[in-house]
Amino acid sequence: MPAFNPLVETISPPPIPSVQAWAKAYDGSKGPLIDLSQAVPGYPAHPLLLEALGKAASSTSFAGYGPIEGDRSLRQAYAAHVASRYGAQIGVDNIHITSGCNQAFICAAMAVAGKGDTVLMTNPYYFNHETTLAMLGIRTALVECLAEDGFVPRLEAIEAAIVSGVRALALVSPNNPTGAVYPAGLLRKIFELCQARGIWLILDETYRDFLPQANIAPHDLFSVPGWEDGLVSLYSFSKSFCIPGHRLGAITAGPRFIEQVAKIMDNLQICAPRAGQGAVAETLVPLTEWREENRQEILRRADALREVMAGLPAWRLDAVGAYFAFVRHPFPEMTSAQVAEHLAKQAGIVCIPGGYFGPGQEQSLRFAFANADVPTILSLRERLASVSP
Amino acid sequence: MPAFNPLVETISPPPIPSVQAWAKAYDGSKGPLIDLSQAVPGYPAHPLLLEALGKAASSTSFAGYGPIEGDRSLRQAYAAHVASRYGAQIGVDNIHITSGCNQAFICAAMAVAGKGDTVLMTNPYYFNHETTLAMLGIRTALVECLAEDGFVPRLEAIEAAIVSGVRALALVSPNNPTGAVYPAGLLRKIFELCQARGIWLILDETYRDFLPQANIAPHDLFSVPGWEDGLVSLYSFSKSFCIPGHRLGAITAGPRFIEQVAKIMDNLQICAPRAGQGAVAETLVPLTEWREENRQEILRRADALREVMAGLPAWRLDAVGAYFAFVRHPFPEMTSAQVAEHLAKQAGIVCIPGGYFGPGQEQSLRFAFANADVPTILSLRERLASVSP
Repeated sequence: MPAFNPLVETISPPPIPSVQAWAKAYDGSKGPLIDLSQAVPGYPAHPLLLEALGKAASSTSFAGYGPIEGDRSLRQAYAAHVASRYGAQIGVDNIHITSGCNQAFICAAMAVAGKGDTVLMTNPYYFNHETTLAMLGIRTALVECLAEDGFVPRLEAIEAAIVSGVRALALVSPNNPTGAVYPAGLLRKIFELCQARGIWLILDETYRDFLPQANIAPHDLFSVPGWEDGLVSLYSFSKSFCIPGHRLGAITAGPRFIEQVAKIMDNLQICAPRAGQGAVAETLVPLTEWREENRQEILRRADALREVMAGLPAWRLDAVGAYFAFVRHPFPEMTSAQVAEHLAKQAGIVCIPGGYFGPGQEQSLRFAFANADVPTILSLRERLASVSP
Repeated sequence: MPAFNPLVETISPPPIPSVQAWAKAYDGSKGPLIDLSQAVPGYPAHPLLLEALGKAASSTSFAGYGPIEGDRSLRQAYAAHVASRYGAQIGVDNIHITSGCNQAFICAAMAVAGKGDTVLMTNPYYFNHETTLAMLGIRTALVECLAEDGFVPRLEAIEAAIVSGVRALALVSPNNPTGAVYPAGLLRKIFELCQARGIWLILDETYRDFLPQANIAPHDLFSVPGWEDGLVSLYSFSKSFCIPGHRLGAITAGPRFIEQVAKIMDNLQICAPRAGQGAVAETLVPLTEWREENRQEILRRADALREVMAGLPAWRLDAVGAYFAFVRHPFPEMTSAQVAEHLAKQAGIVCIPGGYFGPGQEQSLRFAFANADVPTILSLRERLASVSP
């Protein structure tokens, strides 16, 4: 048979389905399955949004192609939202709508790097970032983040990693997989470093709406002079609006960057699906309070997880925040995949092995704790205690 | 500022918006604008489909992530449809759902080729195929198609073009931009040639549902031994279901190919938007008759265009079929973009310059005639006659 592209052939298969296969082997003996694997909101989308989605999807107004950059109504609504959240000047020309945040990432990566270039990531990293770059032939170099630092990267480590051939630094804050929230002051220093060294900062802020503080801007990078020619911020509507199935994300960047993204998006899929754009544009403001309530609920879930882990001395909560926790398991002889498989089959707890997030992460597991409600999280204690190697 | 990826920076901006800008300069003096630019159905989606879309989009069942390869219901329904349309054995494992056919194409291209490899296209070509390959650093080589052949490629020309480094041949039938329908016998010979020479055949069949004959299979490639390891067929639900805004397409290929596509799709956007998947799965069969009526309507539109062009001796209809006509304009001193701009501004006819579809196509224009109803098409005669250089 004709050959495949070796860059694609050699990347690992998507990890989520393999993890879900372990879950299927659980016999139910410890109670219902607790799925902490894929980051999916554990509560449904608001009825107002579902109604707006239904209205938009059944209308001929949203059945046709829309502008490549996104429907103006959503670009406007989202620009106003970002402006208010960060206390920054953000306009329609700063926004490109995408089909989810994975697509926002590949657009951003392709805009700045090609085969043979290097993009810096942290270790641990979000695995789809790694496979995305790998299939494009873009090299990755890793900035090690340490448990003792709560998995927040060190400025010196980033500085040392910016060598010739590096085109961008890709960060995720709040972090996937660790949950680490990067302090605004550190992000400012990192961005100034990127500017000084002439590389792009791609900042994935998918989990921004679940930060501990709603009234403090996550960072002040949008007010740094020249930010439009250096910073790319990525966002997903999937998590805080609970509509991953509608595939909706956004890029916030300078107009010159948006222009490059539009060329890529046109080739990738012409425009993001439109019904979701119309519906979110309409409900972004009305759902502000509902989203705030959810944020507080997720904080309670994080607290519940802290309580659970405090009662399990063999386990260690290395980092927790926004949507995720990075947890150290007590089975040093086992790989993280073996432990995760055990957890799924013995205890009905589905999570992602740390090893999937980078080299040297075998002692860890990622819990997408935000998927589960407080009583479910509290029930983890007994289940985790019951797991044997 | 940091650099962009030169492969992206140097591709042309998407052509459709620039053409639409000419349309805005039309003063309305010849009557309403006739938009023959982007291929968009000139009639709305069926109420049954709109209703199903509304139901699915407002339901929490479709708000979550779905399988990467697509919802099983749609893969099943589409597999059965392809099996029946081609009289072939096609199963769920042969189908990958994508977010439209541009995405199906980039997935197929990435699966088989990387930077430095070559993919063969025809000249003229669909411009997004060219820019897609260019931004990936994939080289293109062109198989010339001639007006005297009705823009159907010659087997010898393809044979001569398959040299070292060629990984695939990408064809579009019925063709975009020319409308040419490649005979089943020729496609068979082309595919056997590809098999013999160890390259993939990527066949974009977006306009398949508008072929002149509904009861004859477009080709018999799905019955060629070993087709699963050589053929990739692409399809779009946008045109025949009139839902481009919902972004839905499909790849039909062998399971080994689908496996590679799933890895790419997971990185591109995890899964195609789901409400459209649910709604089309439900209505694919019930809308069979409606789609057949539309097919016949489009044939009447093609006939109307033939009649119009026969009455304009200075103009020449070089090829027409399915959705498009490739028309030779009577202004040899002008570029195709100049003529298209004239047509838009002077006569309110919006179409795409031939030059956008490849080198040496300056004497031609693409008319997406299927966008307009018969009376509108008939009104083109007077308008085209009125255009002066």
